[in-house]
Amino acid sequence: MSTQGQVITCKAAVAWEPNKPLVIEDVEVAPPQAGEVRIKILYVALCHTDAYTWSGKDPEGLFPCILGHEASGIVESVGEGVTEVQPGDHVIPCYQAECRECKFCKSGKTNLCGKVRSATGVGLMLSDMKSRFSIKGKPIYHFMGTSTFSQYTVVHDVSVAKVNEQAPLEKICLLGCGVPTGLGAVWNTAKVEAGSIVAIFGLGTVGLAVAEGAKAAGASRIIGIDIDSNKFATAKNFGVTEFVNPKDSDKPIQQVIVDMTDGGVDYSFECVGNVSLMRAALECCHKGWGTSVIVGVAASGQEISTRPFQLVTGRVWKGTAFGGFKSRSQVPWLVEKYMKKEIKVDEYITHNMTLDQINEAFHLMHGGKCLRIVLKMHAELGNL
Amino acid sequence: MSTQGQVITCKAAVAWEPNKPLVIEDVEVAPPQAGEVRIKILYVALCHTDAYTWSGKDPEGLFPCILGHEASGIVESVGEGVTEVQPGDHVIPCYQAECRECKFCKSGKTNLCGKVRSATGVGLMLSDMKSRFSIKGKPIYHFMGTSTFSQYTVVHDVSVAKVNEQAPLEKICLLGCGVPTGLGAVWNTAKVEAGSIVAIFGLGTVGLAVAEGAKAAGASRIIGIDIDSNKFATAKNFGVTEFVNPKDSDKPIQQVIVDMTDGGVDYSFECVGNVSLMRAALECCHKGWGTSVIVGVAASGQEISTRPFQLVTGRVWKGTAFGGFKSRSQVPWLVEKYMKKEIKVDEYITHNMTLDQINEAFHLMHGGKCLRIVLKMHAELGNL
Repeated sequence: MSTQGQVITCKAAVAWEPNKPLVIEDVEVAPPQAGEVRIKILYVALCHTDAYTWSGKDPEGLFPCILGHEASGIVESVGEGVTEVQPGDHVIPCYQAECRECKFCKSGKTNLCGKVRSATGVGLMLSDMKSRFSIKGKPIYHFMGTSTFSQYTVVHDVSVAKVNEQAPLEKICLLGCGVPTGLGAVWNTAKVEAGSIVAIFGLGTVGLAVAEGAKAAGASRIIGIDIDSNKFATAKNFGVTEFVNPKDSDKPIQQVIVDMTDGGVDYSFECVGNVSLMRAALECCHKGWGTSVIVGVAASGQEISTRPFQLVTGRVWKGTAFGGFKSRSQVPWLVEKYMKKEIKVDEYITHNMTLDQINEAFHLMHGGKCLRIVLKMHAELGNL
Repeated sequence: MSTQGQVITCKAAVAWEPNKPLVIEDVEVAPPQAGEVRIKILYVALCHTDAYTWSGKDPEGLFPCILGHEASGIVESVGEGVTEVQPGDHVIPCYQAECRECKFCKSGKTNLCGKVRSATGVGLMLSDMKSRFSIKGKPIYHFMGTSTFSQYTVVHDVSVAKVNEQAPLEKICLLGCGVPTGLGAVWNTAKVEAGSIVAIFGLGTVGLAVAEGAKAAGASRIIGIDIDSNKFATAKNFGVTEFVNPKDSDKPIQQVIVDMTDGGVDYSFECVGNVSLMRAALECCHKGWGTSVIVGVAASGQEISTRPFQLVTGRVWKGTAFGGFKSRSQVPWLVEKYMKKEIKVDEYITHNMTLDQINEAFHLMHGGKCLRIVLKMHAELGNL
């Protein structure tokens, strides 16, 4: 029986209030309106950004909401005027939209898109500034324009990347956030050249994707920095050539890196979201040209600082969102690269769990002993 | 009678101690050693960097010293192994060296040069780590590797730009610092494109040179920001199209600029040396691509800060020293551009005075009612 045009009642993990366990609820998901796409989410990965908003520290966080933004699925139905995807298409929902019409999209200088930001920023859909999620009539906010911790979600059509149907959805869900963010920070934002010396602060999924991107770009040395020395073994597999634990030295970490690189690195990447490390990452760059890219997301209200002399003497401070990738255009390209085995994806997945285990999964994530945890969203998908 | 190989006794303005009037003294200037050039300084302009070190606020400032770094002159004699200039050559001493051999010069990524920095940073000459200036046997420190407030000075050969002898030395002395810094910030560091919207914080000589550079690059709007509204009249002649006085609004200046530019400027330049303005300059940039360049020199110990979100959403924070120009290679090119009337120089000179009026000249400079003040260094040069 077709569900098109009907409200779908399905399971979703609802964050009723900050810092309280997510609750698996029966959620009503309204049909997509004009310019919207309803997606059956098959697999979803957990990311620290979900946890950050969930914690209540994000001042823009709205509750109750359905979190989640790194996922894969299949289009269930589309609203009026949607032409680029149709029911049955395999897709990755993208928190970074790409409308190809706004000032940002047309600039040729950024992957940010302004079209739906006013709605997604307040947990709603643009056409009527309402939510498509409700429980017994009570609206539940969307999150990042994706809300993928639901078996079905509704997103704007400018936020859907159609991908190769041959690609395994249980893997490529990772191409919705962390892996592209790391690869793109290197390829699009920093534009690392062959022979470069690179420093990576934080060896989680994003940091490892930076290492992978730097290796692919031909970096000569890839220095991984983490307070957990156990991470080096895994990091080697992603391209990290040297490891530094800041706890092993009394010197500031930037000085340690400068000393071991004859003046500093060519490129550095902060993948933790710690403003002190962001400063260290800038200051471990080589005078004259070293470029530091902020990849991690700091808590609200925190600020970065440094002496302006650091910049006057040639260092450059940048940041990146979704690695500078244009979502609808380039996520399918990343899927193809994965299919050709040019980029890793499977290697970032350390755990497979199910939607009803989501609280346990977040607990595991905070323990720091895992990379990506992928949740199966429907029982009928079978075991991975 | 040739002075080659002899000590020259001449007049120089000596800073005996911080914040005390400069004293015109008879200074002995030793002959140039290997790799050094002795220059008869003909004209010198005053710059705020001289005043900063003189004030005692520069922790690297050494006293007694001979300040000055924006000048023109004629080579008097050269030391052993100097091949690129010879006595009689018209030159501009350059505080930014260019050896063409060090890691920096060979990088192709910066105009900074590392060869003589260890000596110039401590007021000495590299070959013997001694000064060439003395008064009755007491050494007087060099400053910025130039010390142009002396009728004769000794500099490293990597710090001398040979220029067209047809160029008026009483004008092109300005090409030793402020004007190239502003032009280069636009052309080399920011790489402003035609059609860009530009904001300039501070409309002194450097800020006006930024305006001139931006106009030459085809900027569509050039917004000048200064707390002295009288500066707008002059600024128009250099390309500034709109003027904002931060005192005219209760809103933060970055918000004023964002509001008047539909989201922010493409490029901003801080030409004051004020860390609060540096933040404003970054934050008035357009999300997604706006680039802010720190041109002004902040006082020691001061720090810049912002929310990392500013960078994560695509703004870029950079800085520039001598506008990114390679001194020996490009100062002669700037002189040629001046000769072809492609860049202004004369227009920045508001006052002509003499070496013995140097304290009065600095007083005038601090008053803010002038641009560049040029001092004639020898009585025999006649009136300008």
